[in-house]
Amino acid sequence: MRISGRVRVVEVGPRDGLQNESQPVPADTRAELIERLADAGLPVVEAGSFVSAKWVPQMADTATVLAGVTRRPGTAYPVLVPNREGYGRARAAGATEIAVFAAASETFSHRNTNCSIEDGLDRIATVCDAARDDGVAVRGYVSCVMGCPYEGDVPPDRVARVAERLRALGCAEISLGDTIGIGTAGQAQRLIDTVARLVPVECLAAHFHDTYGQALANLLAVMEKGIAVVDSAVAGLGGCPYAPGAAGNVATEDVLYMLHGLDVETGVDLDAVAAAGVFICGVLQREPASRVSQAMAAQMQA
Amino acid sequence: MRISGRVRVVEVGPRDGLQNESQPVPADTRAELIERLADAGLPVVEAGSFVSAKWVPQMADTATVLAGVTRRPGTAYPVLVPNREGYGRARAAGATEIAVFAAASETFSHRNTNCSIEDGLDRIATVCDAARDDGVAVRGYVSCVMGCPYEGDVPPDRVARVAERLRALGCAEISLGDTIGIGTAGQAQRLIDTVARLVPVECLAAHFHDTYGQALANLLAVMEKGIAVVDSAVAGLGGCPYAPGAAGNVATEDVLYMLHGLDVETGVDLDAVAAAGVFICGVLQREPASRVSQAMAAQMQA
Repeated sequence: MRISGRVRVVEVGPRDGLQNESQPVPADTRAELIERLADAGLPVVEAGSFVSAKWVPQMADTATVLAGVTRRPGTAYPVLVPNREGYGRARAAGATEIAVFAAASETFSHRNTNCSIEDGLDRIATVCDAARDDGVAVRGYVSCVMGCPYEGDVPPDRVARVAERLRALGCAEISLGDTIGIGTAGQAQRLIDTVARLVPVECLAAHFHDTYGQALANLLAVMEKGIAVVDSAVAGLGGCPYAPGAAGNVATEDVLYMLHGLDVETGVDLDAVAAAGVFICGVLQREPASRVSQAMAAQMQA
Repeated sequence: MRISGRVRVVEVGPRDGLQNESQPVPADTRAELIERLADAGLPVVEAGSFVSAKWVPQMADTATVLAGVTRRPGTAYPVLVPNREGYGRARAAGATEIAVFAAASETFSHRNTNCSIEDGLDRIATVCDAARDDGVAVRGYVSCVMGCPYEGDVPPDRVARVAERLRALGCAEISLGDTIGIGTAGQAQRLIDTVARLVPVECLAAHFHDTYGQALANLLAVMEKGIAVVDSAVAGLGGCPYAPGAAGNVATEDVLYMLHGLDVETGVDLDAVAAAGVFICGVLQREPASRVSQAMAAQMQA
């Protein structure tokens, strides 16, 4: 295995996770969750989004969340931004890093953002132009990289072209999202091989959901292809309201357990992340979806 | 990835799974489950065990189960045997393949079989001698290969020595069990490297539980080391009554999904296995623990 000795774990639970909860979580609770995750050593904690409150009411008060977070030096708190207007609101709220999102599937793009892939990239261009002027780092997401809930198969070539466009527009990092968690290890490796022809693998991140239980195996497979940035959500929060059957993001605890077992450095304290997961799941009144967290709880009771 | 193009999946749900149910499942239901799994194309379906009914009442009527199964040509139906007496009962019930079990941890051996590792191997020797005379194939299990619930770390060297002994006694295949599902991918690879110095990798199988959610990643890792036989349980049945916090076996459905995605041939019909899992979970009145099965059910509803 030729995997990196250090992996950067990007925590997306407070955004990609909580945006899918039917009951919005109060801003002060989200701010506390973000602070706990940053205190655990996670270098990037996605803090929320500035998409329309009409479509994603769960994230409506992200400005309040940002105002409530005492920021740690060295930690990044990006927020998701859909267009130039959202970018203005994010900046007014004090965001210094942002993320934009495109899809590799036309149908998903229309259902998720009400426009074509191409029109979505044009919107992103205006955001990236403004961010460049402001010295704001931009991360780009590509959805449906291993399959679409509406179209089925998604060709790796199409993912590569969208990733290349995002990079050309100014995205420093491109996160490849298996939105419906349908991919397998061999497919994941072929995807990275294809995308890495157009975008340096150092600029790529893996963002896998665990719908079919394949996320950790797929992460191991793409790490063997040089991927060294992994998105995950504490307690396996998340899912996708536009993708039928999509389960949550791969759990940060489970990713850390695998990485640390591989002697990969993350700088993150697994116990502290698990405690943050127990905290937010207490608020949500359910069990953490992390197997590691469940096993740790069983150990405590034994 | 240098993985085998064909993997033999050994279904252990009717034994390793159902032996851990608090309510015994009736013999005719178990026979039906075994037939469904064999019909799905699984080449090996562990059918039960002839351990003491006092300790494992769930398997007390394995002779009735065997009598109720219409056997497919080419399918193996091994049963677990703890000693010479159990071997005799298994043979009287018509068993033509058996499995024996040893541990790589002294404390686990004492708690699970009430004897030392060495004394356990002596018992196994008498079983293997009889099996050799009868032309009965023997599979050997080693428990706690990546950690013990009582002792913690288990040195790979000790696993290798136990595996070597089992092979010398006549076991055609040695299945390495991560009984408490605590191992990680790098550890799993180091284990195979160590054991394969004493036992040919072609004679080894991986038997992983999914307690910490690592099973599929660990299977992928050991397949890269040449492992081509994988134990799993339909619907993720199982666990271990002697191992606190141990969750079930890795689910056969999830293993098949990964293997088929890797273009690895198994000869098994995933849909038929999933249907068998839904059948037995209906009897047990709970959801299959397989993520693939859950995702398939969500797709049907969407």
